[in-house]
Amino acid sequence: MDIAIEQSLTSMGDWQEDLYKDVHRHPELSMQEERTAGRIESELAQLGLETRRFGGTGVVAVIENGQGPTVLARADIDALPVTEDEIVDYRSETEGVMHACGHDFHLSALLGAVRALVENREDWSGTYVAVFQPGEEEADGALSMLRDGLAEAVPRPDVALGQHVMPGIAGQVAITDGPVLSQGDSVHVTLHGRGAHGSMPHLAVDPVVLASSIVLRLQQIVSREIPPGAFSVVTVGALNAGTKSNVIPATAELRLNLRHYDPDVRDEVIAALERIVRAECAASGCTREPEFEYYDQYPLTSNDPEQKQIVRAAFEEAFDDGQVITMAPATASEDFSHLPDAFGAPYVYWIVGGTDPDLYRRAQSDGTVASEVPANHQSAFVPELHPTLEAMTRAQVAAALAYLGDAASEHPGSGTPEQSSSDTSDRAAGAAARD
Amino acid sequence: MDIAIEQSLTSMGDWQEDLYKDVHRHPELSMQEERTAGRIESELAQLGLETRRFGGTGVVAVIENGQGPTVLARADIDALPVTEDEIVDYRSETEGVMHACGHDFHLSALLGAVRALVENREDWSGTYVAVFQPGEEEADGALSMLRDGLAEAVPRPDVALGQHVMPGIAGQVAITDGPVLSQGDSVHVTLHGRGAHGSMPHLAVDPVVLASSIVLRLQQIVSREIPPGAFSVVTVGALNAGTKSNVIPATAELRLNLRHYDPDVRDEVIAALERIVRAECAASGCTREPEFEYYDQYPLTSNDPEQKQIVRAAFEEAFDDGQVITMAPATASEDFSHLPDAFGAPYVYWIVGGTDPDLYRRAQSDGTVASEVPANHQSAFVPELHPTLEAMTRAQVAAALAYLGDAASEHPGSGTPEQSSSDTSDRAAGAAARD
Amino acid sequence: MDIAIEQSLTSMGDWQEDLYKDVHRHPELSMQEERTAGRIESELAQLGLETRRFGGTGVVAVIENGQGPTVLARADIDALPVTEDEIVDYRSETEGVMHACGHDFHLSALLGAVRALVENREDWSGTYVAVFQPGEEEADGALSMLRDGLAEAVPRPDVALGQHVMPGIAGQVAITDGPVLSQGDSVHVTLHGRGAHGSMPHLAVDPVVLASSIVLRLQQIVSREIPPGAFSVVTVGALNAGTKSNVIPATAELRLNLRHYDPDVRDEVIAALERIVRAECAASGCTREPEFEYYDQYPLTSNDPEQKQIVRAAFEEAFDDGQVITMAPATASEDFSHLPDAFGAPYVYWIVGGTDPDLYRRAQSDGTVASEVPANHQSAFVPELHPTLEAMTRAQVAAALAYLGDAASEHPGSGTPEQSSSDTSDRAAGAAARD
Amino acid sequence: MDIAIEQSLTSMGDWQEDLYKDVHRHPELSMQEERTAGRIESELAQLGLETRRFGGTGVVAVIENGQGPTVLARADIDALPVTEDEIVDYRSETEGVMHACGHDFHLSALLGAVRALVENREDWSGTYVAVFQPGEEEADGALSMLRDGLAEAVPRPDVALGQHVMPGIAGQVAITDGPVLSQGDSVHVTLHGRGAHGSMPHLAVDPVVLASSIVLRLQQIVSREIPPGAFSVVTVGALNAGTKSNVIPATAELRLNLRHYDPDVRDEVIAALERIVRAECAASGCTREPEFEYYDQYPLTSNDPEQKQIVRAAFEEAFDDGQVITMAPATASEDFSHLPDAFGAPYVYWIVGGTDPDLYRRAQSDGTVASEVPANHQSAFVPELHPTLEAMTRAQVAAALAYLGDAASEHPGSGTPEQSSSDTSDRAAGAAARD
Repeated sequence: MDIAIEQSLTSMGDWQEDLYKDVHRHPELSMQEERTAGRIESELAQLGLETRRFGGTGVVAVIENGQGPTVLARADIDALPVTEDEIVDYRSETEGVMHACGHDFHLSALLGAVRALVENREDWSGTYVAVFQPGEEEADGALSMLRDGLAEAVPRPDVALGQHVMPGIAGQVAITDGPVLSQGDSVHVTLHGRGAHGSMPHLAVDPVVLASSIVLRLQQIVSREIPPGAFSVVTVGALNAGTKSNVIPATAELRLNLRHYDPDVRDEVIAALERIVRAECAASGCTREPEFEYYDQYPLTSNDPEQKQIVRAAFEEAFDDGQVITMAPATASEDFSHLPDAFGAPYVYWIVGGTDPDLYRRAQSDGTVASEVPANHQSAFVPELHPTLEAMTRAQVAAALAYLGDAASEHPGSGTPEQSSSDTSDRAAGAAARD
Repeated sequence: MDIAIEQSLTSMGDWQEDLYKDVHRHPELSMQEERTAGRIESELAQLGLETRRFGGTGVVAVIENGQGPTVLARADIDALPVTEDEIVDYRSETEGVMHACGHDFHLSALLGAVRALVENREDWSGTYVAVFQPGEEEADGALSMLRDGLAEAVPRPDVALGQHVMPGIAGQVAITDGPVLSQGDSVHVTLHGRGAHGSMPHLAVDPVVLASSIVLRLQQIVSREIPPGAFSVVTVGALNAGTKSNVIPATAELRLNLRHYDPDVRDEVIAALERIVRAECAASGCTREPEFEYYDQYPLTSNDPEQKQIVRAAFEEAFDDGQVITMAPATASEDFSHLPDAFGAPYVYWIVGGTDPDLYRRAQSDGTVASEVPANHQSAFVPELHPTLEAMTRAQVAAALAYLGDAASEHPGSGTPEQSSSDTSDRAAGAAARD
Repeated sequence: MDIAIEQSLTSMGDWQEDLYKDVHRHPELSMQEERTAGRIESELAQLGLETRRFGGTGVVAVIENGQGPTVLARADIDALPVTEDEIVDYRSETEGVMHACGHDFHLSALLGAVRALVENREDWSGTYVAVFQPGEEEADGALSMLRDGLAEAVPRPDVALGQHVMPGIAGQVAITDGPVLSQGDSVHVTLHGRGAHGSMPHLAVDPVVLASSIVLRLQQIVSREIPPGAFSVVTVGALNAGTKSNVIPATAELRLNLRHYDPDVRDEVIAALERIVRAECAASGCTREPEFEYYDQYPLTSNDPEQKQIVRAAFEEAFDDGQVITMAPATASEDFSHLPDAFGAPYVYWIVGGTDPDLYRRAQSDGTVASEVPANHQSAFVPELHPTLEAMTRAQVAAALAYLGDAASEHPGSGTPEQSSSDTSDRAAGAAARD
Repeated sequence: MDIAIEQSLTSMGDWQEDLYKDVHRHPELSMQEERTAGRIESELAQLGLETRRFGGTGVVAVIENGQGPTVLARADIDALPVTEDEIVDYRSETEGVMHACGHDFHLSALLGAVRALVENREDWSGTYVAVFQPGEEEADGALSMLRDGLAEAVPRPDVALGQHVMPGIAGQVAITDGPVLSQGDSVHVTLHGRGAHGSMPHLAVDPVVLASSIVLRLQQIVSREIPPGAFSVVTVGALNAGTKSNVIPATAELRLNLRHYDPDVRDEVIAALERIVRAECAASGCTREPEFEYYDQYPLTSNDPEQKQIVRAAFEEAFDDGQVITMAPATASEDFSHLPDAFGAPYVYWIVGGTDPDLYRRAQSDGTVASEVPANHQSAFVPELHPTLEAMTRAQVAAALAYLGDAASEHPGSGTPEQSSSDTSDRAAGAAARD
């Protein structure tokens, strides 16, 4: 990268760390990110940018800087109902809420990238759309911004960019072709038994026993029904029935999360899920059918191979040797792809590691990554601040400049007027032609 | 019963119905019965009685009326966290709280009995202690009154009386020797798995699956471990784990309720319960032991055979033919017996039916009592107001007068010298000997 | 008992022990008791009695001895497919077959009783029908004798007598009114999944997982569906599916055993069983319905209260103090009552303990009877030879003489010509009249 | 292929079909393939070849034909304990035994290939070792041949060849790099409960309920413990406990089959399996530890990439366009690789489809392959005789000639000096270097 931009990245450390810690201390649940959105707006205003809200707490800034392609970069900003472990002195001050998915890194990195680009307008040309998206954890944040007119209000991007911090060596960037993150579905299942006094089970249809039978039966979808090795996650993340020991409740509620890369497997799993739940209700003698509500449905995140090639090349130039690796598809899901899909635009999504390198390498060699390394949504998931934050900022800048930077104009598929109107396969073709 | 008392019972209808409906409309959870206690105090004050609080919301009035035995009568006054069905126009006005166990009947009947006794002081002599007890549903109400000094503050009763409305033909009174209600224990089990993102089950020790396995395994205590036909109830009234579909929670909580008539069976069940929970945690690979907290422990309610004989005879005189029946032990539990036990006093406890007679008889002949007749703690358990309320009031009065009434001194088993020497009625004799 | 009979009982020891050990060494499965039947015939022939076969291996001798009532005494003779532990030097010589239910005691005691009666014809009058019944363990032995004409071939008994050795202090006799043994049903359930190569579970409907789910679900019938404390046993005695690890079988077979004292509970259990099995098959996605075959259905064994009174009195005279006790109903079942039911005759059935007294008392005081004392059908169930065998012989003789003995003629309901033709309620009435 | 060889292949139809049907009619279980081995010997003798037995029923013929590489081709010959559906008029005549895995095709094809090679010795040079292996289904056939000296008795092969018929369009050949078939383990688990009479569950530790709990718990290994999408099969192919409904057995036996491509996942699964089984035994209160016996352990079958390239090229030349496809790894396991591993030789293994093409294509488009297409080990798995048998014969011949044929010496990857220096084809080069 250009020396000036390097200097921007280097000099923003204190500001960005303060910003990150402030956001980390004040996590907000999905679609309630008022303070967070306000802080983002304030930072963007300090950079002289105008902002606009979409979907309530979503913030967007469009940075126009002459001719060239349009790049949309997105960071999600919401937190989770998790009680943070006591690890760092900037621990969440809102008890029971925590940035346990690292979105504080995402937004701090994107604000850092915006700052670097604004401070160095001479080093790039085109349009940069910074999208700070609320409500990713409940799958409705991107859609709520779109429902609120985002796609009509900003220029169509030539490429959209997104990233996530995850377990991995802090500062390493991982990227791949095709499926990056899974298609995700949440299902709220309500079981209707019959309540009774706890001492009179024969008068009840016990929904606790029913729900438990269902949970065990559901394990058989992955273990027996789908082809071995096919990717499918069927998690019952919540099972809630009853409040008192001596009252058999009338109902039980399950909240399931499904993850897939293959829509056919997903369809099979959903059919099996409904078949099992209905039959188990019959086995218990329920007189009322169970109810299924599908929600928090995440799209598949699948990188465009050509664009990924362009971004990976930029990463390899911007990072030290060995810092850019090829990842396996992650099991997580994201609603990010709703944004590019709304424009019919290609996108690239990558992962940045946030784990202490010594811990990670030791856990890898021990085969104890699963048990030793804090993972997203766990109460101990507080990624290493450095160099994770720097790497995520650098990645956003490098990926943007792959399209908007001075070098990009010589590279086919990056921003001459003719090409910016070309379809994505042309650009891909061009990208490949560089090889 | 004396004609004057009969007139009192007959004439109190409107007052008592208003009282009952008011209490039904304003149910209060255990140990929070402020409004209810206030209403009771107000009614007792109107009858010229002094009252005293014990255990916060417990109300006691001692009615001294000359020489004679002391009778303690108790009604419980708390409600449950159940949302009442829309059945009656005096439905609970506190959403999510309901007098689903009929304590509104108990307190209204006891207030009616107090009124009848106060209005007819010439027809009895001795001391009547009316105890309005809070917090029965959480097993701590009687103990909280005792901790607050109840046993030291009122005279030692010669007999204690208690009653409960349950499914059965409205107005029928059911009574038996020995075990009436079961010994009850509640157990709060906390399972420590390991949380993770819902898409990464391999990083978790899934407490939902663990809890479900435990629930199914616990069924085997009753079905396989205790002798067939031995009385034991092992209910998991609450199973709560997780709040979001895509976060595998770190813990799950079970709330169990156990009921027994035989302490040996109870001990065996508790040992099996702990063995199963610990082993299932091991099967899941938990690294932290489960926790067991025992609470809401109810004593066995077991009628004194001699006193029961006296009370049953009084019922047979006070009620029409066929209205007094012999009951099987009920599966429910009560903390009532803590009160007489604190004095070392014998006690009698009976059940009054509250179901529409046509419905009950039809359900009995169909064998559909279990499914058709609303039972305690169900959201449809709104007993027939009439004649249930009258029968419960009459039963309290008749039982009291068996000891305190004019006839009591001539009554077999109540203290003539010959009878007091009999082997079976010592305690009754003692009670009567105070005359 | 008469001194001569006492002498007979005392002097037959060696003969009876040899007989017992021989039978114990050569157990035969149900309806295959050829050697056993031959041995019985040989013994009866040595006593000068004619015998007749019914139902293949059933042996009957009718001993007519003048006027008087008719008593039918029955012993079952079959063994079980159990491999005997190495405990005694007369261990089963047929590997995998064992007299694990003590029928060897039953038949040896009955042969002993016949011998005592034949040797002392002067001490009794009437008719004694000794029935050696095959196939009790498969519930069809009594019926097969009846199908073969037994009821038409022997005189109608005034009373029928049966006994069983069980855990209990060796030599103690236990008896009760009403239900003695439970109603028993066996159910053969065939589950139709779909087989596949073991490595291709997605092509199968796995009947092993299905059967396992059913077994766990069935536990809920006793734990949740029937009223707490109601007697019900739902045992899955056999679950068989597959032979090779790498072939998912197409079917699984369950063999259930049900025990009840109350036909309504039984009906409820059978309905629940079928409901659960069908629904679980639906949960697994079976395309073929499960099959239910009911077999080995045992009737309820419920003692006639009046006859039991007569027999108990005789036992109390014939045994030392404390050796005759009141038993709780046993959970086992018997096809014995088919025989008296075929004649419309009353019957009395009792239990004789066979456990080492020290072991039994220690296990009782420890509460470890369940784990320490070998029970019927276990591979260590080899009752104490002495005094169990003597007590069982004495009990058969004493019960018979209660009707046939010299003293019996003075006792109403025992054998004057008029009375022998009277119906059983007369005799019961007469018995009660003595009190 | 050479015209003469083509003629051989074409003209052997009737002979080969008769041979196949005869073998299909007379299936023999593993290591009992006496008739089958005899038939193979007879056929080889008719071709003028000497044969030798290894491992009892294994038959080997070594065909030396001048200088050149050595190729070992192997067919397995045993059948399964499956009752064949009534589909074809050459159905198994041994009830309960069936060629349900298609080994009859394998051996008939290999005999056909031998015949073609013997009839056309002028078209190839080198050594062809035909191995007819017993006992593949029990994982010990290859090892038993090796224990019997096979590796010392025949020349070291330059490449080993094996094939299998599976669901797929009849006559299509499928091949891939790396893992072709999974590593397989069988585990025999014995659970020690405590037996009792079926009516006395409280005296037992019920192994049926225990085994069922284990089966459900084991599903959680694949559904929860291993990473989503990791390949693992944990099948309980057999669960056997008890024989009679009214005897609770003392033990239960499980036979599990495990399949993996990744040894680390396999180790994790085995650890979880043992952990779960032990803990479940503790949950049931077993006093004796479970036992684990590992057997039928199959090695991973993983094609050498270079040799696979050679063989695939030969297939593409020998088969029509579109008839050679790339396969995904199959979930099945094989003991084939023990043979080349014993020599340290590379190998190539491929699959030939055996399903009616119309059925297969329709089922593929419907997504009903799993339910509609008979798969290996199912009772309806009778592959289409034609063109499956011809294709399997042709494949064996083509693969052999890739090394032994006249063209082989000029063939890329087979030893010209330039190519032998390439990094990817060393081993192939070495093979060819013997020419």
